[in-house]
Amino acid sequence: MTLTPFSFSSLDHLFMAHALRLAGRAAYTTKPNPMVGCVIAHGEEVVGEGWHQRAGEPHAEIHALQAAGERARGATAYVTLEPCAHTGRTGPCADALVAAGVSRVVAAMRDPFPQVAGQGFERLRAAGIAVECGLVETQARQLNRGYLSRIERGRPWVRVKLATSLDGRTALANGESKWISGEASRLDVQHWRACSGAILTGAGTVLADDPQLTVRLGDDTPFVPPLRVVLDPGLATVGRGRVREGDAPTLYIHAPDAKPPRGLSAQVASVPAPGGRFDLNAVLRLLAERHQVNEVQLEAGATLAGAFLQAGLVDELLLYVAPIVLGARARPLFDGLEINSMAERLDLSLVESRQLGADTRLLLRPSAG
Amino acid sequence: MTLTPFSFSSLDHLFMAHALRLAGRAAYTTKPNPMVGCVIAHGEEVVGEGWHQRAGEPHAEIHALQAAGERARGATAYVTLEPCAHTGRTGPCADALVAAGVSRVVAAMRDPFPQVAGQGFERLRAAGIAVECGLVETQARQLNRGYLSRIERGRPWVRVKLATSLDGRTALANGESKWISGEASRLDVQHWRACSGAILTGAGTVLADDPQLTVRLGDDTPFVPPLRVVLDPGLATVGRGRVREGDAPTLYIHAPDAKPPRGLSAQVASVPAPGGRFDLNAVLRLLAERHQVNEVQLEAGATLAGAFLQAGLVDELLLYVAPIVLGARARPLFDGLEINSMAERLDLSLVESRQLGADTRLLLRPSAG
Repeated sequence: MTLTPFSFSSLDHLFMAHALRLAGRAAYTTKPNPMVGCVIAHGEEVVGEGWHQRAGEPHAEIHALQAAGERARGATAYVTLEPCAHTGRTGPCADALVAAGVSRVVAAMRDPFPQVAGQGFERLRAAGIAVECGLVETQARQLNRGYLSRIERGRPWVRVKLATSLDGRTALANGESKWISGEASRLDVQHWRACSGAILTGAGTVLADDPQLTVRLGDDTPFVPPLRVVLDPGLATVGRGRVREGDAPTLYIHAPDAKPPRGLSAQVASVPAPGGRFDLNAVLRLLAERHQVNEVQLEAGATLAGAFLQAGLVDELLLYVAPIVLGARARPLFDGLEINSMAERLDLSLVESRQLGADTRLLLRPSAG
Repeated sequence: MTLTPFSFSSLDHLFMAHALRLAGRAAYTTKPNPMVGCVIAHGEEVVGEGWHQRAGEPHAEIHALQAAGERARGATAYVTLEPCAHTGRTGPCADALVAAGVSRVVAAMRDPFPQVAGQGFERLRAAGIAVECGLVETQARQLNRGYLSRIERGRPWVRVKLATSLDGRTALANGESKWISGEASRLDVQHWRACSGAILTGAGTVLADDPQLTVRLGDDTPFVPPLRVVLDPGLATVGRGRVREGDAPTLYIHAPDAKPPRGLSAQVASVPAPGGRFDLNAVLRLLAERHQVNEVQLEAGATLAGAFLQAGLVDELLLYVAPIVLGARARPLFDGLEINSMAERLDLSLVESRQLGADTRLLLRPSAG
């Protein structure tokens, strides 16, 4: 299907921006489904709105159509993602829009999910509905970067979270790291965890810091607990640690030659680890395919963070820079990088910078090219 | 002299803020004198304003009184620093204010300079002028932190400028460092240099980077060239380097046992260097006493930057953080720090954060206590 460029009005922009905001409300709860928002309007008047809240529950369009009732007839529906054309746990939204009699559908983007992939638009057009796609597509892709990564690349979006001193150190030489960042930063991390489908760490971090890796938002905001994943080639840490405590599931990924102990209650999976180093591509594929993980948050030490960076598998770096100095003997941010000339340095782009208490939070992404 | 707290009006605040802005216009040119601004007003009406532009030229009050002429009679004079009471290269400003017939003087702060130090206020009061001091004193002290450091502590204010990667590295293992930071950052550094009385570096940096350490603002903004100072115990670098080129003077500081070569055109000075390490307090005292340096900008490698930090001699850290990663083999930000526990870490406070092109500029100061 070829999409022709459309000319959108300022009202179109206004309502799509609102639909994107609605979609974002479910950032902690829709996974593994995409976030989707829908606004139904007659000219300037909004007659219905909704967003997809949880996988298995009605999609955004259904909520909005229910709110609009009879007033959906002849209206424009703004959706942040192509309406679905298949019957999953809910019926096809394209059919519901047709049945409600909307006359125009404006979508931010096509849904690459194989069972949709243009078929939603086709059903609408076949019913005589005007369909326009591509309004603020960049922001819509940004919102669902995890879902899109899983569907389009077959692996989750990878966010590396690190807390560092001004001089690029994450812990003292003796491993002590409590606390580099301040309280506001540590609470902020919880929100990023809540957006994630999995929190990934290494056996070394389990042994050194014994993190629980659960989401602790400090209030009753609902969220779907992310899977806790420990990369542990020899399954040295399965018997211990807070990473097994709490409500979230835990998965140990081990090398093929390690044997999970009998009666282990946690999940395990084997991934090739030639030379004792996991095939990180295989790890990510496993998380995408078997666990439907859209976004992975890596919370690990310099070795694992460096390995992901060296492999080109980091999509964004979430860096909390604390206004402290730890000195040159302290532990580095990334280990194992092969950088011998300025041409080999890794370039990132700053997406956002903000203050969190005394800390500076930088969100960066590898530069294109 | 005991200062009683005064109650200032919003007009007082307005005019003093303006006087501070006027003072700041001479940031590149008044050294070693303090920056001073003056506003003369009748109620809401400004009748004269001025600022001290260069050492040896008229003070702020004289410029403002000249602009006000007869209208100074009965007016209020707002000055960012106590008017002088002594005859230096210009006559006492306190006398000029008395002669002009102003009825009230509002000052941001007392001048700690021994020949003033309250005597300016006394002369004004003796002439029946109402004197009020302390309006936005914090900002006024901030503006002249270099001058105040030299007069009150007997040493310059020390600013450490560093450009770092995200992982706290200032150069590759082979010393390559061109360029960590972007163009906007490198131009910004020139402005901080122009504010400085001296740019300090080490022999290692001269050998590795061959910096010129001159001010290159890219336009014809006037400035007083800062003294270039090379810490070179054995005078190994006197014969080479761009640090001798250009219009600014150069000073080599050497250990007592080094002998300056005959016919050397640059300035030299000897400072104790027990065990091959300079007494940094003595270096700073020398710059304050013999060269009237208010602000020193340190532009050096990890060893010298670390030594100043370890000695507690860093007043502010100007850190340009580039969105790049250089890896754990690259050179650290600070070397030689003795930090073995979190209790020994160095805590700083973030004064300001801003974007400069792709870089993030952090201005930090050691936390009190």
